[in-house]
Amino acid sequence: MAPHPLAILSEEEIDVARGVVIASHPETVIIFREIYLLEPPKAQLLEFLALEHAGQLTPTTPRPPRMALCQYDVVGSDQTPSYRESAVDVGSRKQVKHQVIGEPHHAPHTLDELNAVVDRCFESSLFKEALSEFDIPEGFEVVVEPWPYGGSDDADDNRRFFQGLCFARDRTKNNDDANFYSYPLPLIFVLDNRTQQIVRVDRPATGGKGDGLRDQTFKRDIIGHCNSSDYVPELLPGGTRKDLKPLNLVQPEGPSFRVTDESLVEWQKWRFRVGFNPREGATIHDVWYDGRSIMYRLAISEMTVPYADPRPPFHRKQAFDFGDGGGGNEANDLGVGCDCLGVIKYFDAILTQSDGSATKLPNAICLHEQDGGIGWRHSNWRTERAVVTRNRELVVQFIITMANYEYVFAYKFDQAGGITVETRATGILNVVNIDAGKTSDYGNVVSGGVLAQNHQHIFCVRMDPAVDGPDNSVVIEESHPVPMNDVTNPNGNFYKVTSQPIEQASWLDAAPDLNRTVKIVNPHCKNPISGNPVAYKFTPLATQRLLADANSTQAKRAQFAQHHVWVTKYRDGELYAGGRYTLQSQREVDGVSDAVRRGDSVSDTDVVVWSCFGVTHNPRVEDWPVMPVETFQLMIRPSDFFTANPALDVPSDKNGASVVVEGGCCRDAHALGDR
Amino acid sequence: MAPHPLAILSEEEIDVARGVVIASHPETVIIFREIYLLEPPKAQLLEFLALEHAGQLTPTTPRPPRMALCQYDVVGSDQTPSYRESAVDVGSRKQVKHQVIGEPHHAPHTLDELNAVVDRCFESSLFKEALSEFDIPEGFEVVVEPWPYGGSDDADDNRRFFQGLCFARDRTKNNDDANFYSYPLPLIFVLDNRTQQIVRVDRPATGGKGDGLRDQTFKRDIIGHCNSSDYVPELLPGGTRKDLKPLNLVQPEGPSFRVTDESLVEWQKWRFRVGFNPREGATIHDVWYDGRSIMYRLAISEMTVPYADPRPPFHRKQAFDFGDGGGGNEANDLGVGCDCLGVIKYFDAILTQSDGSATKLPNAICLHEQDGGIGWRHSNWRTERAVVTRNRELVVQFIITMANYEYVFAYKFDQAGGITVETRATGILNVVNIDAGKTSDYGNVVSGGVLAQNHQHIFCVRMDPAVDGPDNSVVIEESHPVPMNDVTNPNGNFYKVTSQPIEQASWLDAAPDLNRTVKIVNPHCKNPISGNPVAYKFTPLATQRLLADANSTQAKRAQFAQHHVWVTKYRDGELYAGGRYTLQSQREVDGVSDAVRRGDSVSDTDVVVWSCFGVTHNPRVEDWPVMPVETFQLMIRPSDFFTANPALDVPSDKNGASVVVEGGCCRDAHALGDR
Repeated sequence: MAPHPLAILSEEEIDVARGVVIASHPETVIIFREIYLLEPPKAQLLEFLALEHAGQLTPTTPRPPRMALCQYDVVGSDQTPSYRESAVDVGSRKQVKHQVIGEPHHAPHTLDELNAVVDRCFESSLFKEALSEFDIPEGFEVVVEPWPYGGSDDADDNRRFFQGLCFARDRTKNNDDANFYSYPLPLIFVLDNRTQQIVRVDRPATGGKGDGLRDQTFKRDIIGHCNSSDYVPELLPGGTRKDLKPLNLVQPEGPSFRVTDESLVEWQKWRFRVGFNPREGATIHDVWYDGRSIMYRLAISEMTVPYADPRPPFHRKQAFDFGDGGGGNEANDLGVGCDCLGVIKYFDAILTQSDGSATKLPNAICLHEQDGGIGWRHSNWRTERAVVTRNRELVVQFIITMANYEYVFAYKFDQAGGITVETRATGILNVVNIDAGKTSDYGNVVSGGVLAQNHQHIFCVRMDPAVDGPDNSVVIEESHPVPMNDVTNPNGNFYKVTSQPIEQASWLDAAPDLNRTVKIVNPHCKNPISGNPVAYKFTPLATQRLLADANSTQAKRAQFAQHHVWVTKYRDGELYAGGRYTLQSQREVDGVSDAVRRGDSVSDTDVVVWSCFGVTHNPRVEDWPVMPVETFQLMIRPSDFFTANPALDVPSDKNGASVVVEGGCCRDAHALGDR
Repeated sequence: MAPHPLAILSEEEIDVARGVVIASHPETVIIFREIYLLEPPKAQLLEFLALEHAGQLTPTTPRPPRMALCQYDVVGSDQTPSYRESAVDVGSRKQVKHQVIGEPHHAPHTLDELNAVVDRCFESSLFKEALSEFDIPEGFEVVVEPWPYGGSDDADDNRRFFQGLCFARDRTKNNDDANFYSYPLPLIFVLDNRTQQIVRVDRPATGGKGDGLRDQTFKRDIIGHCNSSDYVPELLPGGTRKDLKPLNLVQPEGPSFRVTDESLVEWQKWRFRVGFNPREGATIHDVWYDGRSIMYRLAISEMTVPYADPRPPFHRKQAFDFGDGGGGNEANDLGVGCDCLGVIKYFDAILTQSDGSATKLPNAICLHEQDGGIGWRHSNWRTERAVVTRNRELVVQFIITMANYEYVFAYKFDQAGGITVETRATGILNVVNIDAGKTSDYGNVVSGGVLAQNHQHIFCVRMDPAVDGPDNSVVIEESHPVPMNDVTNPNGNFYKVTSQPIEQASWLDAAPDLNRTVKIVNPHCKNPISGNPVAYKFTPLATQRLLADANSTQAKRAQFAQHHVWVTKYRDGELYAGGRYTLQSQREVDGVSDAVRRGDSVSDTDVVVWSCFGVTHNPRVEDWPVMPVETFQLMIRPSDFFTANPALDVPSDKNGASVVVEGGCCRDAHALGDR
């Protein structure tokens, strides 16, 4: 049986694609970056899915060709790499599309490239010289943290740069996980990726309030005022707390979900497929509920993390955590019982080595159920009967680590027809050295000598809806006050609900004062009860937009982060809010703002909706050394899509495993049955 | 041992207070409304708590007197009740304060009063006459739903009214929980509470778009176009779903919390007391973390539910779910295993009968632990070691039912020093009859003949902070863009964080565009690391404020709902955002807006902060017949209060009870240990 068109490429398929690429560039050195599924053009896939949902698939049903997107460098005789992207038809073993990606774009970085930054630093004489300016205490060693170069200056001549941030690690702890971030060194080494030479040392200022942007105030004793601040349990001075008793999530009859055909998930009337790619991580496809289509594709499209410290070179500090190196590439192998509880199904992912070979990333995605508290409840005071249901949720989760930071992404499906996209930011703040005793306008001192700079995290979720079919419209619904008047509002209690269809591709912002809600409707399907067009809706999260000046490089390369919602017409391959190439970009190219600029009609057509939200993170001391999660939830909910609460038939039985404490503590606990 | 000053009154104490009241009104009929703990004046209680926390309490330590707040009617010889409030010193058996509450105030209603509405309707000839205007189908019976009268008109002459809304129940189902709300009748009976006479029948319009506000368009066959829409499982046409397998929360070693001294909860460095009163329901007192004070008192102060249908008499439809009849009075006896999972500790409450006797409400509050997902996490890519902790939460929950609606309130304490106040709205929409085939500008048709009117739910949480002591200040922190300029922002990436202390009692609104954050600081305690004053902070929830015209009765009686945050100077007894007497009020009296109007200095003093938020609820068909929870979370977080992430010492052990599914479904599940 052929794989489903949405199944990730198998190791064998990757190997075929690799062979085709190598054969098409004879006697050339090829450095592979990625080989992964190029999803079929939507028209093709819709045709296939229609047959699939109609139960009409046969072994001879024509299928969209399995296509591999191959990203690689061809290294010329002068050692200059030329970045290419090819589409290889795996079945016919043919390269069907080939593109040389030229200036100003840079290929997303690979882990190999980052690792090289570390090596080149240690080999460089500039590195040794610069470090000799400081007295690093006995027992400490220097750690280089490789980073994308960030927003590039014109002066950089579009050379491919990386930077190495420097910290010191206390080796006397004999622990490779001792937290080196608590000893930041004010040195940033710049690597020219082509020549593999360290070409420059940036010396960021370490001053505080009143010091100038470029004042060099640091002393030779550069980390004498820094303190140890560890997070691994064996290095905690007091160890871990002892009074936390186990809390287990037990599913004696197993999970309620079913996974078949590798990627098909069925659970509680939901049916969808889980995909994975090195750019977006886990993706959700072809979402149906009880035999009706809701969403064609759902993914985290991009996120940017701009920093607000104006002191050069910190103005370049701006990560695009999906575009720069691939969110999927940074996905974790999820352990059992810490990243989630209960009965867990893991999905493996496949990534690419520089020689083009496939390598498995085990447990890249987890699938599990959780209890979401009370789902719906009504108590009839006449009969004293309460009917209570709990809201069971199905969670598809993946976690990415970007050097210091950590993001937990979850797609949550609930029994009331809702989909929630959840982001949790955690991990370690990116920090810099600050002189002893100083405080700063640019951040907060979170540990001795450690300044955590103010920054933002702005996420973008891409929704490709298919509410009862692929052609949908977007309507903005608002609630407006109405002045008291004799005709329509004699007592002043009336407010007016307005609906404004979006005719042309555009952006809009959250307006909580107007209860602004975005409805994705199918104008051809009316709810038989209300008469309204069936819809899914969400309230744009009213979080602060990008703060950088519109003329700054930060703003130019992250147009998407300047509005909360973007509505565009679907185009194959148009997946990335910040553009396909963000690494070292100077502006957003072919991102969502360019898509809007086309001015397409978006009425009753294949529309895509992008939701951007995030946090202005002015760090607290409590965010150190590892920050408690900062959570956002984008809630996508049915709105006159169903003919009643879809969770109405959830059983309301009491949970027999619950236990009542009769006295003050556990000694007095009795099982429910004993009561 | 004497009870703790914050312990709720025992049945014996209530009996003493009752006796004192009766004795002080010889030969008079007394109808009791409430008898409950009058919390000690703060100055007295703080003195006691200081000794308690210092471990200096002895059996002879002087304690604040145990005071009972007694609310009752004295019925005069002309049968006119006069509402009184007395404070009785239970220890000395003396009435120490006595107040006659006169016009324009009305005492909060009792359940007895509501029940009487139903009886009086059925006895009334007006009722019989009005119903004879309709053909109620064979097998249906009329149900009267008693309601507060709402916002009163001047014309009402301040008489104490109640209203009876009418529905029909299909008795042929032989089920007392058959959903009568799906058969609304357009009749509202008005009861004069003093005379116990039905004095008026209001006939609300049943029209739709294009019909006038008072057009009487209904037909004799008033519910012929309505449909059955039940929620109890035995009446669901298809029964409940069968594919949901059990998910149990199991705590084999019991809970991690300890409850002693009736009301003292200790858990994971947290220590606080749980109170209960008939007005606010569960209250939280004297919150400490790891030996430091954070909050003196935390409670749900009020909520209002104004409806937006302009057709008389719907303009009166506005509930104050805490003030009108007491949120605590409406608290549910919580079952086991459906309202919460795991190991549960219940607290009983005590309410008052009309004869003044105490009656126990069992299981009015539940206390339990839950898993809040990943708490903090860092993965070191160098060592491939991930340290992951889960965020265990301790939940104090109570649930109130207001006729059709249902609210779940939870105070959640987490391991990172955070407190979250969570509200969930569920239950059944309050609905009215709409003519067949019509739709409305005033709401949504959610079932045949059933119009769910647009409305808002606006909650107010009262925080009485004690951040490292009772004297605190409030600071508004915002993040502002800074135009690119050579001196402070040469590259445009800088943004400025501003701090504005609130000097005088005032209100403010959410401003997500500025990342407006409210910080409650102790100006005398500096964080030793950052140098900032220690603080707790919250981001006001940017939800829509009250929409009613400022000159409407709805707006006048709910001033609190017109701004997101109010900052006032503490006064004993000043607990209620919408004023002490909301029932049938025409304006907010002695609510939070009056407290602000005093213009007190609120700098470095005993400050109180009120947070208002809610939802503009334009109903969906999916909200019928019982709505999925609509959830809000007010997150109160430490901000430079601690010297590091307080959850750092949470163990990161794997959960041994988790299970991996190797194949597609449960048959292939293996325990973790087998892998």
